[in-house]
Amino acid sequence: MRLKPRDTRFFDLLTGAAGNLVTGAGLLAELISVPQAERPRVAQLMHDTEHLGDAATQEIMMQLNTSFITPFDRQDIQALAAGIDDVLDDMDEAADLAVLYRIEDFPDGVATLVELLARAAALTAEAMPGLRKVSDLRAYWEEINELEDQADGVYRRLLAVLFNGEDQDGRDVRDPLTVLKTKEVVDRLESAADSFEHVADVIQTIAVKES
Amino acid sequence: MRLKPRDTRFFDLLTGAAGNLVTGAGLLAELISVPQAERPRVAQLMHDTEHLGDAATQEIMMQLNTSFITPFDRQDIQALAAGIDDVLDDMDEAADLAVLYRIEDFPDGVATLVELLARAAALTAEAMPGLRKVSDLRAYWEEINELEDQADGVYRRLLAVLFNGEDQDGRDVRDPLTVLKTKEVVDRLESAADSFEHVADVIQTIAVKES
Amino acid sequence: MRLKPRDTRFFDLLTGAAGNLVTGAGLLAELISVPQAERPRVAQLMHDTEHLGDAATQEIMMQLNTSFITPFDRQDIQALAAGIDDVLDDMDEAADLAVLYRIEDFPDGVATLVELLARAAALTAEAMPGLRKVSDLRAYWEEINELEDQADGVYRRLLAVLFNGEDQDGRDVRDPLTVLKTKEVVDRLESAADSFEHVADVIQTIAVKES
Repeated sequence: MRLKPRDTRFFDLLTGAAGNLVTGAGLLAELISVPQAERPRVAQLMHDTEHLGDAATQEIMMQLNTSFITPFDRQDIQALAAGIDDVLDDMDEAADLAVLYRIEDFPDGVATLVELLARAAALTAEAMPGLRKVSDLRAYWEEINELEDQADGVYRRLLAVLFNGEDQDGRDVRDPLTVLKTKEVVDRLESAADSFEHVADVIQTIAVKES
Repeated sequence: MRLKPRDTRFFDLLTGAAGNLVTGAGLLAELISVPQAERPRVAQLMHDTEHLGDAATQEIMMQLNTSFITPFDRQDIQALAAGIDDVLDDMDEAADLAVLYRIEDFPDGVATLVELLARAAALTAEAMPGLRKVSDLRAYWEEINELEDQADGVYRRLLAVLFNGEDQDGRDVRDPLTVLKTKEVVDRLESAADSFEHVADVIQTIAVKES
Repeated sequence: MRLKPRDTRFFDLLTGAAGNLVTGAGLLAELISVPQAERPRVAQLMHDTEHLGDAATQEIMMQLNTSFITPFDRQDIQALAAGIDDVLDDMDEAADLAVLYRIEDFPDGVATLVELLARAAALTAEAMPGLRKVSDLRAYWEEINELEDQADGVYRRLLAVLFNGEDQDGRDVRDPLTVLKTKEVVDRLESAADSFEHVADVIQTIAVKES
């Protein structure tokens, strides 16, 4: 098959792009565990990662423009690249807002949300080489959906605690602006979980088309 | 026509899925009219309905994976199932947050929003068997668009009252966290109206393709 | 070529629709610069413009339903019309909420956001006749992406100032409800920038398909 090399290029590019998600999730974990003074440095690393992600997306788009043969519908490859880009944008925005808003303490559920995102990132990065045989990826998209469901539950309980009062140490956190700012950051994390699910949905769509 | 039975299966599955929206809208109406202590029970029923909805979506996806012939583009059937799922997710999230946030009183417009959603749910459920002749559904998607427009107006006025002060009984409701929590619930209702419109948009798209 | 006239109709309709965005951006600039008492009048003009936009979208959809030949995939034309509609909806919602919430002063970055939207509107309107040769529009979609990026930066800094305290004149603006209401309006402006990017994305998709 002479077409194979060109074919393979997209899997490699998407695998590379998804690798940035693992880096991003790791930086989020670091961001919420380091002292506030060190966060701008971590947010800057996240920003650099997001730029790498942008470059990866651009490369995929350019490849699409210059390839006669693509392994899937062009629109689906574009949607995969865009979905990976969305996750990284959400992560970057969460880190950026955490710094801009000078948030002091993150509520308990935030660490759990970040762990779920790290798991989703690892799964997504592992799934990309598997695009060569997309029907085998059922376990991947099912687990991503399960993770998104868990993230949603954590998110709602976290908001309830945030809005109704005390944090895990019994301190009252009901200062409205602190609540608002924290919610903005947490919303971006929840949105990242959603974006992971969108990527999984595109892959499920590809599998449906190929079935 | 030997293909008819399999063909028909999708209409039946989508009709079943849309039926859950009627149940969901009814539960929302109950939720906002019962005393606060009874709301967790109603929210649990909503959650059960949402699980039924998930099962219906899964069944449609499975059917897509195993059917050689589909009445419309696979992606459009998938988008319809996903859109119906989104509506039910919004309804479930609204009910869940109303309980989690222990909201005491709902502002006036909330009952109107829920009525509009009940109307949209009935229209959508009635439209599904009509997918057999999609061009006849123009009145359906036009009315859904009209309802979404009305919901949007109710939503904005509701927010204005919520943010600027008094409720219908002249009580000041401007406690910031109460405003915020109420807005979160109302946002989900407005999002449900949007999701109904997305379902109608997919059906309009199908009609465009078939024209 | 007998088909040319019908073909050309879509470019004219989309050009007309995009022209409303230039009007809308101009009205936003007026809205934030006039005294509060005059804003309802400007918001009404915006509402009229939004109605013109709805009519333009409807006309494009009708044309799609009655055309045998379309210059691009029907779905892409539909997505373009919908994307232009979304921008105008965001602009209309921003103006509406600014009036409904009786916002007194807009933070500094709002004027910058509105200028970026005006630039995006001009670019989009200029790009529409260029759909005849979509591959030449690369500079357009790249600049829209750049503008969206800038708008995002302005948006985040604006929120940081809004949430953390003083406005440009050193007045404390941290009344939670004022912060919340202002954020609602600003969110719509940021969403308009996103919607411009979605239109550019559809055009990039069309270019990918034609390449």
